[in-house]
Amino acid sequence: MTKRISFTLHATDGAARTGVIDTPRGEIRTPAFMPVGTAATVKAMLPGSVRETGADILLGNTYHLMLRPGAERVARLGGLHRFMNWDRPILTDSGGFQVMSLAGLRKLTEEGVTFSSHVDGSKHHLTPERSMEIQRLLGSDIVMAFDECPALPATEDEVAKSMRLSMRWAQRSRDAFGDRPGHALFGIMQGGVTRDLREESAKALTDIGFDGYAVGGLAVGEGQVAMFGVLDYAPGFLPEDKPRYLMGVGKPDDIVGAVQRGIDMMDCVLPSRSGRTGQAWTHRGQVNIKNARHQDDPRPLDETCGCPACTGYSRAYLHHVFRSGEMISGMLLTWHNLHYYQQLMAGLRDAISSGTLDAFVAKFHADRAQGDIEPL
Amino acid sequence: MTKRISFTLHATDGAARTGVIDTPRGEIRTPAFMPVGTAATVKAMLPGSVRETGADILLGNTYHLMLRPGAERVARLGGLHRFMNWDRPILTDSGGFQVMSLAGLRKLTEEGVTFSSHVDGSKHHLTPERSMEIQRLLGSDIVMAFDECPALPATEDEVAKSMRLSMRWAQRSRDAFGDRPGHALFGIMQGGVTRDLREESAKALTDIGFDGYAVGGLAVGEGQVAMFGVLDYAPGFLPEDKPRYLMGVGKPDDIVGAVQRGIDMMDCVLPSRSGRTGQAWTHRGQVNIKNARHQDDPRPLDETCGCPACTGYSRAYLHHVFRSGEMISGMLLTWHNLHYYQQLMAGLRDAISSGTLDAFVAKFHADRAQGDIEPL
Repeated sequence: MTKRISFTLHATDGAARTGVIDTPRGEIRTPAFMPVGTAATVKAMLPGSVRETGADILLGNTYHLMLRPGAERVARLGGLHRFMNWDRPILTDSGGFQVMSLAGLRKLTEEGVTFSSHVDGSKHHLTPERSMEIQRLLGSDIVMAFDECPALPATEDEVAKSMRLSMRWAQRSRDAFGDRPGHALFGIMQGGVTRDLREESAKALTDIGFDGYAVGGLAVGEGQVAMFGVLDYAPGFLPEDKPRYLMGVGKPDDIVGAVQRGIDMMDCVLPSRSGRTGQAWTHRGQVNIKNARHQDDPRPLDETCGCPACTGYSRAYLHHVFRSGEMISGMLLTWHNLHYYQQLMAGLRDAISSGTLDAFVAKFHADRAQGDIEPL
Repeated sequence: MTKRISFTLHATDGAARTGVIDTPRGEIRTPAFMPVGTAATVKAMLPGSVRETGADILLGNTYHLMLRPGAERVARLGGLHRFMNWDRPILTDSGGFQVMSLAGLRKLTEEGVTFSSHVDGSKHHLTPERSMEIQRLLGSDIVMAFDECPALPATEDEVAKSMRLSMRWAQRSRDAFGDRPGHALFGIMQGGVTRDLREESAKALTDIGFDGYAVGGLAVGEGQVAMFGVLDYAPGFLPEDKPRYLMGVGKPDDIVGAVQRGIDMMDCVLPSRSGRTGQAWTHRGQVNIKNARHQDDPRPLDETCGCPACTGYSRAYLHHVFRSGEMISGMLLTWHNLHYYQQLMAGLRDAISSGTLDAFVAKFHADRAQGDIEPL
C-alpha cells in the first residue's frame, strides 16, 4: 500500500513556517516555489536543469494538457511524470482559473463550464468530476479542487456568489476524488478581499476536509497591498497542520511577504517568462539585459549567484545573444531566474529554522534598495 | 613559447585517414565534425552540452561576429572562447563565403569586398588583411584564408578568374597572418568542378604553404555526385601531412562519402538547423517529428542512441512539444542530431583505425535502407 502524503512542520518564526511535505515521489521542502510546466515543459529548460536549481515540485496546467496532448493520451503514455521526464512531485491546477480567463469563449452553469479550445476552437466541458478525472489521468501528486475565480472588477455580491459556487464544487471535487493513497487533494479558498467571505470559505473547506488548502483569487490584479491585506488574516483561518498554497505568486518581494504571513507553497510563470523576455532577477533587483549599458560589461548578472549563466557568461554576452534572438538567451536567463528563486526559498527556510527571518527580510530589502550593480 | 599546432596521421584505410590535430586548447580527433556557432552560440545548446556530444572544436562565423557584437568588442571581453564559454579549439571562417552570398548588397574589387550589414545596413569593407585581423581579435585557433566563391551557375572562365583572385588573396592572407605559434592558417582550394583548375589552385596554395587546406566551393548546389566527383581527385592534390577540410558539408551520407575520399574535417549547420525545424537524423534515416504518426508512439527517436532526447523522451513527447512550439523541442532535437553526428564520426574513426571502413559504410547504408522504425 502506497504511503499517504504528509506534512510536518519543523519550525515557525512569527507567522512564517518551514517544514516538509513527504510524498512517495520525494520531499517538498516548504516554503516551496513551484516552477510552472504549462505544456509538460518548464519553458527553455530541461527537467534535470530545473531540479539542479533546487525545485522539489513542478506545477502542470490541466487546461493546457487536456487540450494538447490530451489527458487520455498522457495516461496511455504512462502519465505526466514519465511523459515529461520529471520523476518528482507534480501539482496540477484544476483548469478552472484558466478557463475563467477565456472571457466570451465560455459558458458557466452550476454543473460546470463549457468553453472553446484556444488551440483549435473545439468545444470542451469541464466540471469538478471531469477535472478530478483529468488530474488522475495525468498522474498528478497534488490535485487541486475545481473552482471559479471571478474576473476583477467584481462586486462583493458577485464575489460571494462565486465563492459559494466554488464551495459546492469543492464538495463535488472531494466526492469525485475519493480516497487515493499517495495523492493529495487541496481545496481552494475564495472570497476576494472581504474578510467575512474568506472566513466563510475557509470554514466550508475545513468542514469538507482537504489534505492542503490554497488561497485562491489573489494575484489577479488587486495589487500587493490588497493581497498582503488578505494574507494578514486568511492563512489563520486554515488548519495549522496542513500546507497552505498561494496560487500564482509572484515577484520576489511578493514571495517574501507571503512567506512572512504563513504561506508554504507558491507557483508563478514569472521567472521563466521574464527569462525569455530578457528580464533577470538578482539580489540587487531586476536587470533588463537588452539595455545597451550591458553591451561591454564583463561582469556576471549577479556576482553572488552560482548558476550557469552567472558563472559562465558576462552581461555583454547575455546582451549579445538576447539582441541576436538566440535561444541560449532564454535558456540562460530562465535558468538564472529559477536558480535565484530557489536560492531565495532556501534562504527563507534557513532563516525561519534559525529564527532570523526578520534579519533575512531586512537584508533582502536593503540589497534591492541599492539598485542594480555600479556603473563600470 | 606556445606550442605549434600539429597534425599526426594515425591510420589510413583506402583514401580515408584518421589522426589528431594537437592544439594548445586540446586535441581534435579526425575525421572531425565541427558544429557551427554562428553568433557565438551553437543554437539551442549550452557549450557544455555540445562538448558532451563529443565535439572537439566549434566553427565561428567571422561575418556574423564582425557585425554583431563586433570583433574589437569580443577582443576587449577576452576573446571568443571566453565570451561564449568554450575553452576548446575554435575555427573561424574568413567571412568571404557569407559576404559573397549577399548578392546585390556587395561590391567586389581586387582589394576586397564592400558590403552592407544584414543587421543594420551599415557599410563594411572586408579584405584579406582585415579578415586576418578580425580572426586574430576573435582569438581563433584555426584561421581561414580570405577567399571568393563564385555563385552558381558560373562558367569555367568565371570560376578560373575567381579562383586566381582567391589565390592572390591567399598570399595576402598568409602575409598578413604572419607567424603566430599556437594558431594555424588554412588555405582554401577553389576551381569548381574542373580538375585542372583544382590542381592549379592546390599548387598555388602549397607553394605559399599553409598549416592545413580546405576544399572550398563545394556544397553550393552542385549535388552529391558532382561533389564526390571532385573529392575523388582533389584531396590527392594536397599535402598528405596536413589536415584537409571540406567546408559546409553536410548530410550524414555526404560526410561518409567525404571521409572515404580523404577528408579530415567538416562543418555544417544542418544538425542544429534541422533540430529546430523538427527533423532528426537517426541510424535508420531521417525522422520528421511533426508527423502525426508519432503522436502516440512511446518509443524513442532512435533506440540505439544514448543522447538525452532518446534516453528521456518518447516520440509522442517530442511531437507534442514541437507542435506546441516549445523551446525544449529544438533543444532536444539539436542535442540528438549533434550526438548522432559525433557518434557517426567516432564510428568512422574507429573503422579507419581497424581497417574496417568498407564494412562500416556498408552497414551505414543498409541501416538507412530499412527506413525509419516499424509501424506500431
